Amino acid sequence: MQISVLFSGGKDSSLSAILLEPFFEVELVTCGFSLLPIGKMASETAERLGFPHRNIKPDRSILEKAYDMIMQDGFPRNAINFIHKSAIECLAADGNVCCIADGIRRDDRVPVLGQPEIRSIEDRFGVHYVCPLKGFGRAAVNELVKKHLIIDEGLSEDILKADYETELRELIIQRHGSDMVKEIFPSHVQSHVIERRKA
Amino acid sequence: MQISVLFSGGKDSSLSAILLEPFFEVELVTCGFSLLPIGKMASETAERLGFPHRNIKPDRSILEKAYDMIMQDGFPRNAINFIHKSAIECLAADGNVCCIADGIRRDDRVPVLGQPEIRSIEDRFGVHYVCPLKGFGRAAVNELVKKHLIIDEGLSEDILKADYETELRELIIQRHGSDMVKEIFPSHVQSHVIERRKA
Repeated sequence: MQISVLFSGGKDSSLSAILLEPFFEVELVTCGFSLLPIGKMASETAERLGFPHRNIKPDRSILEKAYDMIMQDGFPRNAINFIHKSAIECLAADGNVCCIADGIRRDDRVPVLGQPEIRSIEDRFGVHYVCPLKGFGRAAVNELVKKHLIIDEGLSEDILKADYETELRELIIQRHGSDMVKEIFPSHVQSHVIERRKA
Repeated sequence: MQISVLFSGGKDSSLSAILLEPFFEVELVTCGFSLLPIGKMASETAERLGFPHRNIKPDRSILEKAYDMIMQDGFPRNAINFIHKSAIECLAADGNVCCIADGIRRDDRVPVLGQPEIRSIEDRFGVHYVCPLKGFGRAAVNELVKKHLIIDEGLSEDILKADYETELRELIIQRHGSDMVKEIFPSHVQSHVIERRKA
């Protein structure tokens, strides 16, 4: 069975792909809007991990709607959740995709889909949505990451990642300058995967 | 890293062990109170799956407390959750155990631990608690089961399983007869694993 894993180049989506690898044919998929070269970066990371990779570009209106949400809210939660859900729906609408996975962990607050949203996507598109890390806490994930990956960690403003936040931050910088980004996004530690450890 | 998977001989705990196998040293552990020979049955199933297995027997007072709960409630939910949590705590108190897993799926209602209970167990005992199927819906689990296991399915009263329900039902039969069991437990489909499919 093939599975398409939403891939940001970070440790959670990379580890998810590794956990699925013995049981599925894994492809990594990165969602972007061509504001920054995140697709190219994700592609390089995917190659180092040893997985096939492709980029998808949902309609630009999704990024614009997320921008409107974040500017109105003053915090990123709803906007990030909206892009995440839209990326999953975009993938699910691809007739060749039957399983979709992401790197959501047990303790993640954003992005996360509620049970009714998950059921709605599975029923409307006839796909399975799988979160391999949903039953793993932060400490267990960190142990597995240490064993399987070499990562680079840093503050979110210093690490270029192919996640939903990156291009949303860029759009806000372009329209309001970088001080606005600091107001809206809490600074937090991000990871970028450098290499996969040989077994 | 070693991981102890709570094992009932059913498809969910068996599949959980299979998903963890490439990444952990898996042992299967069955919790019972010696009312029925469920430990022996679980042991035979574990051998057919190819995993090491052991039985644990928590204090009998746990079964009695669960019995009191179920007789007072008139439904099994709280009693089953109580035995499940007690089994995890019993395993966690074993100094050689560092990771505990079970077969809880995304859509399971019983047994299930709440987030505060999970954090409390992880913090008090210094263990990781992992649910490999927590991010998988019923349909995705069924696909994986079909690929990896040969199972026998039937109504809960006809399938002998090494789960928490089995001995609780037996205790109620011994004290009140089998009509009382039918009043308290909804009849539902259970699975028992016969064999592992060769890859």
